[in-house]
Amino acid sequence: MNTLLDSVAAVMPDVQSSPDTRRIAIQRVGVRGVRHPLLVAAGMGQPQATIAEWEMTVALPAESKGTHMSRFIALLESYRSVPMTPQRLCEMAQAMLDRLQADSGDLTVDFPYFIEKPAPVSEVRSLMDYQVGWRVRAQRGQAARFTLQVQVPVTSLCPCSKAISEYGAHNQRSHVTVRLDFEAVPSLDLELLVHRIEAQASSELWGLLKRADEKYVTEHAYENPKFVEDLVRDVAVMLQRQPGVAAYEVAAENFESIHNHSAYAMVRSA
Amino acid sequence: MNTLLDSVAAVMPDVQSSPDTRRIAIQRVGVRGVRHPLLVAAGMGQPQATIAEWEMTVALPAESKGTHMSRFIALLESYRSVPMTPQRLCEMAQAMLDRLQADSGDLTVDFPYFIEKPAPVSEVRSLMDYQVGWRVRAQRGQAARFTLQVQVPVTSLCPCSKAISEYGAHNQRSHVTVRLDFEAVPSLDLELLVHRIEAQASSELWGLLKRADEKYVTEHAYENPKFVEDLVRDVAVMLQRQPGVAAYEVAAENFESIHNHSAYAMVRSA
Amino acid sequence: MNTLLDSVAAVMPDVQSSPDTRRIAIQRVGVRGVRHPLLVAAGMGQPQATIAEWEMTVALPAESKGTHMSRFIALLESYRSVPMTPQRLCEMAQAMLDRLQADSGDLTVDFPYFIEKPAPVSEVRSLMDYQVGWRVRAQRGQAARFTLQVQVPVTSLCPCSKAISEYGAHNQRSHVTVRLDFEAVPSLDLELLVHRIEAQASSELWGLLKRADEKYVTEHAYENPKFVEDLVRDVAVMLQRQPGVAAYEVAAENFESIHNHSAYAMVRSA
Amino acid sequence: MNTLLDSVAAVMPDVQSSPDTRRIAIQRVGVRGVRHPLLVAAGMGQPQATIAEWEMTVALPAESKGTHMSRFIALLESYRSVPMTPQRLCEMAQAMLDRLQADSGDLTVDFPYFIEKPAPVSEVRSLMDYQVGWRVRAQRGQAARFTLQVQVPVTSLCPCSKAISEYGAHNQRSHVTVRLDFEAVPSLDLELLVHRIEAQASSELWGLLKRADEKYVTEHAYENPKFVEDLVRDVAVMLQRQPGVAAYEVAAENFESIHNHSAYAMVRSA
Repeated sequence: MNTLLDSVAAVMPDVQSSPDTRRIAIQRVGVRGVRHPLLVAAGMGQPQATIAEWEMTVALPAESKGTHMSRFIALLESYRSVPMTPQRLCEMAQAMLDRLQADSGDLTVDFPYFIEKPAPVSEVRSLMDYQVGWRVRAQRGQAARFTLQVQVPVTSLCPCSKAISEYGAHNQRSHVTVRLDFEAVPSLDLELLVHRIEAQASSELWGLLKRADEKYVTEHAYENPKFVEDLVRDVAVMLQRQPGVAAYEVAAENFESIHNHSAYAMVRSA
Repeated sequence: MNTLLDSVAAVMPDVQSSPDTRRIAIQRVGVRGVRHPLLVAAGMGQPQATIAEWEMTVALPAESKGTHMSRFIALLESYRSVPMTPQRLCEMAQAMLDRLQADSGDLTVDFPYFIEKPAPVSEVRSLMDYQVGWRVRAQRGQAARFTLQVQVPVTSLCPCSKAISEYGAHNQRSHVTVRLDFEAVPSLDLELLVHRIEAQASSELWGLLKRADEKYVTEHAYENPKFVEDLVRDVAVMLQRQPGVAAYEVAAENFESIHNHSAYAMVRSA
Repeated sequence: MNTLLDSVAAVMPDVQSSPDTRRIAIQRVGVRGVRHPLLVAAGMGQPQATIAEWEMTVALPAESKGTHMSRFIALLESYRSVPMTPQRLCEMAQAMLDRLQADSGDLTVDFPYFIEKPAPVSEVRSLMDYQVGWRVRAQRGQAARFTLQVQVPVTSLCPCSKAISEYGAHNQRSHVTVRLDFEAVPSLDLELLVHRIEAQASSELWGLLKRADEKYVTEHAYENPKFVEDLVRDVAVMLQRQPGVAAYEVAAENFESIHNHSAYAMVRSA
Repeated sequence: MNTLLDSVAAVMPDVQSSPDTRRIAIQRVGVRGVRHPLLVAAGMGQPQATIAEWEMTVALPAESKGTHMSRFIALLESYRSVPMTPQRLCEMAQAMLDRLQADSGDLTVDFPYFIEKPAPVSEVRSLMDYQVGWRVRAQRGQAARFTLQVQVPVTSLCPCSKAISEYGAHNQRSHVTVRLDFEAVPSLDLELLVHRIEAQASSELWGLLKRADEKYVTEHAYENPKFVEDLVRDVAVMLQRQPGVAAYEVAAENFESIHNHSAYAMVRSA
């Protein structure tokens, strides 16, 4: 049957393969917004089943009219049940260059990742969700470059509000977003990285807190006031000590409890 | 030219006007996600220029194949520069029934609305934004029914966290969403309503606060701890005293500063 | 240690358990926006690992000051590795009433669900994602009521555009959203339901299409033009034949390719 | 009263102004997600009232602990009723450096912008909405750099689908997003730029189309099939001819009517 299909397809015009005369190379072309199940091995434990959103693109030379979009999805399907690691994503990016006959390409995959944490006093265990992104930039004849992004929700408590007030201090949920460019493909311990980011905040968050935990968290945050500037600086100091990091960027957004807008700061390695 | 166009159009098949045999009346058909400028007269002051998103639908009898979508947009364009009040939106809904030859219809318009407020101590003035929705349900031969929805962002401070902790109390931004069904078209003072909703929270929010204000807001919130349950109940008590309200619903969502999820409560009039 | 914790907790004030004097019962209070892994058994095949967003609420009597938010998350954690079916979700809702000492409560869980489909000509297999929602309303002493919601993305091709044009016809992605209230807890075949909804559209969608498939899909859609009104009516006719359905609602939104807004229609059972 | 306030404030600790020892300069700190009315003069006609979302940030030297967040909002309030042009936004960015005592800073403002267009045959007039972003990068002692971003929704019709099918061709709404970095502050004709972008698509979109227009649009799109690659290349060729453009980037996303994901392409000037 495939032979029949192939001969049918052979007589169809292949518009994408016709030449192009505009002399404009395209840096990135492909698919985005592709939702797919993902089995991810990001920490030290068992692979985790999650749902990912993919962007898959390649460079297209000036003389080619179009890429073959279906090959991206075919590649994705062929990796459906493979536990994904940074190493394997780099291999997948190289396979994409081959399938698409491209010289360079990018894979982006974003997914929620769950870490089980004990509450600080009662030690009752629950899951916290983190939004994670992996990016690979592949170029023919070169080692692929891997970038990790993770968004860590935390509590921030305002030092100014604490200092000027008789009692209390405004606090709120904040998002700390860290991007790490690695020199080589890392054997990544995502959970340890998240733990170190959380340790820089006024407090980390938990899914499940009993009253003894809530007392601890409230008092702990009050004892650790942090401006949005402190958050990004303290995370940056920590990141500077990570081995194998070529470049980093850390941003924090505080969803201010006293305003209807955010405070925001960003530090990038020089 | 219009005559020529009309004769061209006359020979085009009018698929929408053909009969339908499935015997299924459609409760609502029309357009949604229509972004359009709006001049809105919602408070006591000057009309305010904002950007609205519209949904415009009518009922379609079982025997009609389709509605005429372009007439909704034509109606909207004809109201482009008219300052909109609840009264005028009701008139517009009746005009929609005429244009679409429909027996009932719904207009929904959502827009950000700004109120200038003085900070609590410094009295420096700034704008706060609120998301407002107006809905009209029109039926031929009956008075239109008007519903107001407004989302008011506030601070909530947790009474449990305050009571069990030596110092501090977790607090966060919350959204209080109020829906009011009116018995008759109201001469609405939106700003007064927002003010009364804000008064039920641990604290209201401002765009601009100086340090003396921030001290006041921090201490005021600490002195007024509210559970999400307290928020909806206190707003409900206030709403029960509003004249002309046929029914109300009030919901509150606290974007918890110690969790990565929300606390939520909702009260509806019996 | 738990005994120590319990005695510590015993001396902490339990603010939530104090009486309330405002005489306002709360219809729904609990948590929302809780992201959690879910193992779902919705079709005929193996359970599927996905990521869900939960809303869990109970009614609170007028005389109670507050609910105990942590119990919702504790309940959720206790169901973490249980394959979820409509039947089990109903049991979970009853367990929620017990844990929260409530007379009624609601569970809402939304998740992406994947179905593997063969392309129409090449039969190459790929996944399509659908957004699914399950809701349970539990009341003490009564059978729980189960509601299913599913959003099915399809192609719609405009009959008017086809009829008046020499060649071509505008078409676009559409979302068909179906809500079914069941008389009893259903032994649900979600994949069959999705298949029957897709069959009413101008064309269904696939993740992966080869050129022979794309030709088929293009021509098939052109041969099956549907207004947004046709979509909801044809789905409604199909739903009327489903056994065990107490009530249904079907809505369709066409993200019009010739406008920057949507066409929309909704039919609800009488 | 202000004198009293000032002396109260004088005795409050000014935490932000204390020195910092972590030796980490912050590239960007400020506010984001600030919604505010905007009077914008972007085309050749009258200024247009719209609603903007602002991000306002400055660089913070390594030795400073914190910025003064309220000064950003105070600056924004002082520009509330000023018709905004690219030139004025550059002046505002310089004023921000002064107020915040910063060496560099960024202003980002995003807003919907409306253009009235006649339908292609009936010439009936209606509004189309476009999402516009202006960015200014200011550095002390240098001319500010202005960047324009605009998202233009269009129709794309697939050349492959047309070529291989007996009749019809799949088409869909697409977003073309153009970013232009200008050498000097431009006297910008946004409407002309949008018009030139739309001219590269299979068809432009309108708010209101009568049947004679719909026939024209359907046939015109069928006569102008474009891959996502063609869209970005044809826009790039047009942009290369614009005077005063230092760099450009053009991206297109097709919300495929035959898939549940997008086709995407991006070209950036060398």
